[in-house]
Amino acid sequence: MEEGLIPNVSVDCVVFGFDFTTLNVLLIERNFTVDGVVYDDLKLPGDLMRLDEDLDTAAGRILKENTGLSNIYLNQFKSFGSPDRLKKKPRDMKWLLQIDHPEEHVITIAYYSLIDISAQHNSDLIISDNARWCPVHEVTDLVMDHMDIVQCALEHLRIELLNKPIGFELLPDKFTLSQMQKLYEVILETTFDKRNFRKKISSMKYLIPLNEKQVGVAHKPARLYIFSREVYTKTKKDNFDFSV
Amino acid sequence: MEEGLIPNVSVDCVVFGFDFTTLNVLLIERNFTVDGVVYDDLKLPGDLMRLDEDLDTAAGRILKENTGLSNIYLNQFKSFGSPDRLKKKPRDMKWLLQIDHPEEHVITIAYYSLIDISAQHNSDLIISDNARWCPVHEVTDLVMDHMDIVQCALEHLRIELLNKPIGFELLPDKFTLSQMQKLYEVILETTFDKRNFRKKISSMKYLIPLNEKQVGVAHKPARLYIFSREVYTKTKKDNFDFSV
Repeated sequence: MEEGLIPNVSVDCVVFGFDFTTLNVLLIERNFTVDGVVYDDLKLPGDLMRLDEDLDTAAGRILKENTGLSNIYLNQFKSFGSPDRLKKKPRDMKWLLQIDHPEEHVITIAYYSLIDISAQHNSDLIISDNARWCPVHEVTDLVMDHMDIVQCALEHLRIELLNKPIGFELLPDKFTLSQMQKLYEVILETTFDKRNFRKKISSMKYLIPLNEKQVGVAHKPARLYIFSREVYTKTKKDNFDFSV
Repeated sequence: MEEGLIPNVSVDCVVFGFDFTTLNVLLIERNFTVDGVVYDDLKLPGDLMRLDEDLDTAAGRILKENTGLSNIYLNQFKSFGSPDRLKKKPRDMKWLLQIDHPEEHVITIAYYSLIDISAQHNSDLIISDNARWCPVHEVTDLVMDHMDIVQCALEHLRIELLNKPIGFELLPDKFTLSQMQKLYEVILETTFDKRNFRKKISSMKYLIPLNEKQVGVAHKPARLYIFSREVYTKTKKDNFDFSV
């Protein structure tokens, strides 16, 4: 095993990307051959921690090494440590036997990330050859317990979206209210009546309309908005409405 | 080191107890002597994980071994893994040198627990001799990074209290609205006007008034209430009010 690694602790990252239509998750190919059999699976970006780094640093490094992405929103949401989490599927056992650190029990600290992937021309979004975006609702099988980790990340994302203005991490700097509505619908797996949605967001003082409209669209161009973190910080109040 | 332990992973528990007046945290004495010097500190209940257990099982076991408490609400809230978290204070270095597993980098998975400690006669609440309840606001110094862990647990507790009916874990089965108000005030570090508070909680359909009043109190006995988990589960709705 490479020196300086902690054998029993890893970090895994669930990177969500929104393209105005679908919520996607970034997955890495895990390909190997044993006894002539080719194993071809998908996994989350993840790896063992190093002795000299803290959790957030490890998450950033591992995401960069696995996917090429850097400087994106990262949020630690849960740790997973079932003793059989690596050994649930025969093909994971095959994989464990042929790597150089076949630990029996690895606790993983899971993070989720949010990025806007609507700007296909954005060079910051170039990802490694073995990484690919997959629509979340089409992902049904991943290595080890990575499906559980994705499901748990989705639940945290939904709760966060209803409690903090994190949805804007998934939108470009300037966006339309229809794009914002689509984002909320996709993550919350629901649909909103347009008027109802506008009413719900009317109290968001940090959602600032611009004197600017979309360009180059086939339909009637819509007004663009920005999210103001400054206004959010200044106007946010503690939520003392206990109607939970 | 005892066999079967994972050297780099521990669990720490922040156990909150409410006694109708103060929010308390359960701390363990860490006493040792090196070169004739007595070191006398307080720490969170915590220990290394075992190879054969998952995180929740480890948290329950470690809490029981450290404090004598079992079967209480436990919620994993964050992991802490700064490489210098054990080595910030000289007295922690002294302690590390005299235990049998002086690992340099231990990642800890932190849980918080909530219990009602108003019933002093309750035999389930008997704690170990080296454990003691301390008012949270009087705790200013703990071993290693345990103060950070307590502060972070408090922040999570506040958010959870505003989003889920977890406060009832800190109250006896039957309680008065004044006791409930005091709990919210203590955790949120604020005061409420009595009428305002009653208005805020009026939408909690799962707060059920009983045809029963306090007994043995010096003041006018107040009506008792219960929290109904059944009503909560049946009536809870997704919070689509985005006014964050």
